Amino acid sequence: MPDSLPSDSVGLVSPQTIHFNAPIDLACGQSLENYDLVVETYGTLNADASNAILICHALSGHHHAAGYHSMEERKPGWWDSCIGPGKPIDTNRFFVVSLNNLGGCHGSTGPGSVNPSTGKLYGPDFPVITVADWVKSQARLADHLGIQQWAAVVGGSLGGMQALQWSLDFPERVRHAVVIASTPRLSAQNIAFNEVARQAITSDREFHEGRYYEHDVLPRRGLMLARMVGHITYLSDASMGEKFGRELREEAYKFGFDAEFQVESYLRYQGERFSESFDANTYLLMTRALDYFDPAYEHGGDLSKALAPAQCEYLVLSFSTDWRFSPERSEEMVNAMISARKKVSYAEIDAPWGHDAFLIPTPRYTDIFTAYMDRVAREVGA
Amino acid sequence: MPDSLPSDSVGLVSPQTIHFNAPIDLACGQSLENYDLVVETYGTLNADASNAILICHALSGHHHAAGYHSMEERKPGWWDSCIGPGKPIDTNRFFVVSLNNLGGCHGSTGPGSVNPSTGKLYGPDFPVITVADWVKSQARLADHLGIQQWAAVVGGSLGGMQALQWSLDFPERVRHAVVIASTPRLSAQNIAFNEVARQAITSDREFHEGRYYEHDVLPRRGLMLARMVGHITYLSDASMGEKFGRELREEAYKFGFDAEFQVESYLRYQGERFSESFDANTYLLMTRALDYFDPAYEHGGDLSKALAPAQCEYLVLSFSTDWRFSPERSEEMVNAMISARKKVSYAEIDAPWGHDAFLIPTPRYTDIFTAYMDRVAREVGA
Repeated sequence: MPDSLPSDSVGLVSPQTIHFNAPIDLACGQSLENYDLVVETYGTLNADASNAILICHALSGHHHAAGYHSMEERKPGWWDSCIGPGKPIDTNRFFVVSLNNLGGCHGSTGPGSVNPSTGKLYGPDFPVITVADWVKSQARLADHLGIQQWAAVVGGSLGGMQALQWSLDFPERVRHAVVIASTPRLSAQNIAFNEVARQAITSDREFHEGRYYEHDVLPRRGLMLARMVGHITYLSDASMGEKFGRELREEAYKFGFDAEFQVESYLRYQGERFSESFDANTYLLMTRALDYFDPAYEHGGDLSKALAPAQCEYLVLSFSTDWRFSPERSEEMVNAMISARKKVSYAEIDAPWGHDAFLIPTPRYTDIFTAYMDRVAREVGA
Repeated sequence: MPDSLPSDSVGLVSPQTIHFNAPIDLACGQSLENYDLVVETYGTLNADASNAILICHALSGHHHAAGYHSMEERKPGWWDSCIGPGKPIDTNRFFVVSLNNLGGCHGSTGPGSVNPSTGKLYGPDFPVITVADWVKSQARLADHLGIQQWAAVVGGSLGGMQALQWSLDFPERVRHAVVIASTPRLSAQNIAFNEVARQAITSDREFHEGRYYEHDVLPRRGLMLARMVGHITYLSDASMGEKFGRELREEAYKFGFDAEFQVESYLRYQGERFSESFDANTYLLMTRALDYFDPAYEHGGDLSKALAPAQCEYLVLSFSTDWRFSPERSEEMVNAMISARKKVSYAEIDAPWGHDAFLIPTPRYTDIFTAYMDRVAREVGA
């Protein structure tokens, strides 16, 4: 809890829920008759609505990207390091829109919402969602907000996939796409880790085939395990070594299976906390959206062909120790962009924190991100 | 099932059970009054018992390292690629001893054995075992077999840790220690993956605090998950990509949570098969033995000090794409050996298969291993 709000914070913010009454057809063949999206905005939309930035969230993210919901909130929004007055996404210049995606568990319509056709919670009946579905729903959000073209669509990890998809599905509505710590498609290893997470959740006896709400229980252990596996892949071996090493909780080995090493209790704690705040069905949906994302798929695996319609400029950033979506995956994207004659700026940032580095400000990351966004602001007169 | 046995196979082999009646004190403070070790041997012990090689197994390994138990056996022992007539560990020259370790689930005394003090199966009451405990029990096995000094103690992964520990605990009884794809201690990331595996097992409702035998059930889902996680860490991102890529089982996305990608069904299959053939309590013990291994621990973290008593020569081998126990971990070991004035040969083998590469013969691996073992054989007149 901050005593006073930092001067470079967007300050106290309130989410708003926007109801969309028109049906949305999804890639899976199903549709939603209507849906809600929970949104936060920071900064002011200028007169010609040219200074809007869309923030797309990653697997466990949500709409609360910056600022504080109250003076009692312990931590600011998840990307507060990059969004605020004077920060890379400068809210003195940009109007920033951040939402919770469809299928989410932070207020937007998802598995924990009432299915209007049954009057019960969706649970496992919530349709499988793709990155393209999110982009479609975000385009409607742009319509609602009167934004014809985003100055930039920005995201890290799964969020970067949405930025990329925007540039392909609505080329004329994206001036810049900022794709951070992302990949044009999951590798077999990435899918494998997701599959372990899903199996952990669905194996939990309290999962009840996704209808745990009706049983008044939660598949806590499964979700905890899923998060533990995920968490390991967000960090680098080196940063875990730096943070925990082989440090013991007590002085000597106890020769048992209680948490003895600090890293064990840290992971258990993170997993348990997550299992109390996140919805298991949403976790399944988000990991599946990751698996399916592959814009090159319909172009015989040729990403540069998939990129043909794009009209935006790209900023692609990767992090040296990210082994979940390694720099090589970003380079693949950049190569395809160049081969498709697109404008792209690329940097691999040296940072020890693995995939999580995209959430942690470091001088070179901040400098490059700031300089690029400054150019975006100048272009749109912000 | 081979139609006929390959000429470079040790052929049909039979395990034997050796009963040890003297109590063994363990690192955890407990002791076993008596115990069995299941053993296979290949080749012939020479007159002065100088040509004996001890094979130490890894996490899920056992005594059946080479040859076939019957003409019906589909696959030979787990390290048949390296043990046999004319192979790196040449059974025309060496007498090879391979055992199932204490705590194992392939016939040696372990959690599935009867606890003589209760008349029931040990289950979770089986003491936590360390690498040093295994080495102590293996030394008794050497006594039993009349082997004063091993020509070499050889192992990969957790097996390599045993080879290293032998050189420290019984310096005069080891001529050569061959440490393959191993590490002098687990990293925080390694421990974290082990912890996920253990949590998966102990979270399974059928685990019953380790007393699942008494309930006539098995914690299959937990063990399956544990194996799935483990399996991912044994392979490289590249080799999984090579083997599975993003290949689908059917032609198009089905937008659901059944296995759609080949890698999903492969992992599920491997996990399920493992969960039917391996004991969950043993899995817990083996991962904990990995966690605890750290010979430098009692020497203020200085591995070269820990190595001071060693008299053997070392061969250390690592594999370029092994990210579980990377070449850097082997180099750490080699540096400490050099700094402790020990004789050590080291090679990093270029191989795409990650940690599993130690089980897969490649020309440079086979050549180096063969040349080194030839020198060992010559030294002992074999």
